[in-house]
Amino acid sequence: MAASATPRPPRADARRNRARILAAAEAVFPSSGVSTPVEEVARRAGVGIGTVYRHFPTKEALFEAILVRRIERLADEAGALSSTTDAGAAFFELFTRIVEDAAGRKAFADALSRAGVDVKAATSAAGQNLLAELGAFLARAQQAGTVRHDVDLDQVVALLVGACLAAEHDNMDRGLRARALAIVFDGLRPEASR
Amino acid sequence: MAASATPRPPRADARRNRARILAAAEAVFPSSGVSTPVEEVARRAGVGIGTVYRHFPTKEALFEAILVRRIERLADEAGALSSTTDAGAAFFELFTRIVEDAAGRKAFADALSRAGVDVKAATSAAGQNLLAELGAFLARAQQAGTVRHDVDLDQVVALLVGACLAAEHDNMDRGLRARALAIVFDGLRPEASR
Repeated sequence: MAASATPRPPRADARRNRARILAAAEAVFPSSGVSTPVEEVARRAGVGIGTVYRHFPTKEALFEAILVRRIERLADEAGALSSTTDAGAAFFELFTRIVEDAAGRKAFADALSRAGVDVKAATSAAGQNLLAELGAFLARAQQAGTVRHDVDLDQVVALLVGACLAAEHDNMDRGLRARALAIVFDGLRPEASR
Repeated sequence: MAASATPRPPRADARRNRARILAAAEAVFPSSGVSTPVEEVARRAGVGIGTVYRHFPTKEALFEAILVRRIERLADEAGALSSTTDAGAAFFELFTRIVEDAAGRKAFADALSRAGVDVKAATSAAGQNLLAELGAFLARAQQAGTVRHDVDLDQVVALLVGACLAAEHDNMDRGLRARALAIVFDGLRPEASR
């Protein structure tokens, strides 16, 4: 019995099922929110309801996992960005993607909060990981000379929080959001490169 | 009876009482919120409870008036600023004051929202007035050459919304808020004046 205390790595089909359940739940959420029946999620994912509950004991756990996955996906995209985009542009691109994703994330976060989940605690690890990525992007952009050397990650995060909250607020027009962000980015650039 | 349909201007003592009630309510709110008994507000204002109810028929009306007054006060300060500060600096000063006031305003706004008040509608006129002031400050700062000519009021408001929401969020440290705002302001400045 002692051996079972060490969790085995999930088999490939279990990982696949988990991903399909999450994708299905994410797809139905915008129309039905947390009131979506778990049966509907299982049907769309093409798995039995027992499989859903094996991966996510409660509906809150399922929606929490969607939120964490959204943040992890941004971190994955960051990994891809850093290998395909030059360091100077990559920082601004990652900042923009995080802001663009904010409005969608908020709907999940609000639904979870209403269901009594401590969203901050639930997303803490994924959020810290994403911020660490952003910090690395900042350092590289500063080395490349596209971001001022006197700017630190705390300032960047404060600006990011403001931009994300503004993006969520009243569903701000996408064009205006981009124009407002352009001003913030100009403020982050060394004078000579504006 | 027709004459009484035209509201008479409030007498000086009525205006004074109204101001004292608002000041008392604003002073007790941070510790007691909307659950503050109206009796306590009346006692602190040095008026009878009937006087409170004559000015503010419901507690919601009282707290709504506090919120409106906070916004009006910012507009009043703007009037003073424009006569004592040069146009270039005045725009950044007004922007900063609105952000600094945001955290305090939010507590009232949230309490009112929970009490079922449509905060946006309640503060619409005062908010529009303040934004008109900000627009005039922006135009003067652009004439004075301290704000870029290619920036419009929509962008400024989008940045202001983000800065206010960030200031409210997790009670962001005042020093960090100022350092983040400095970056936004640099983005608003013409390159030559940074």
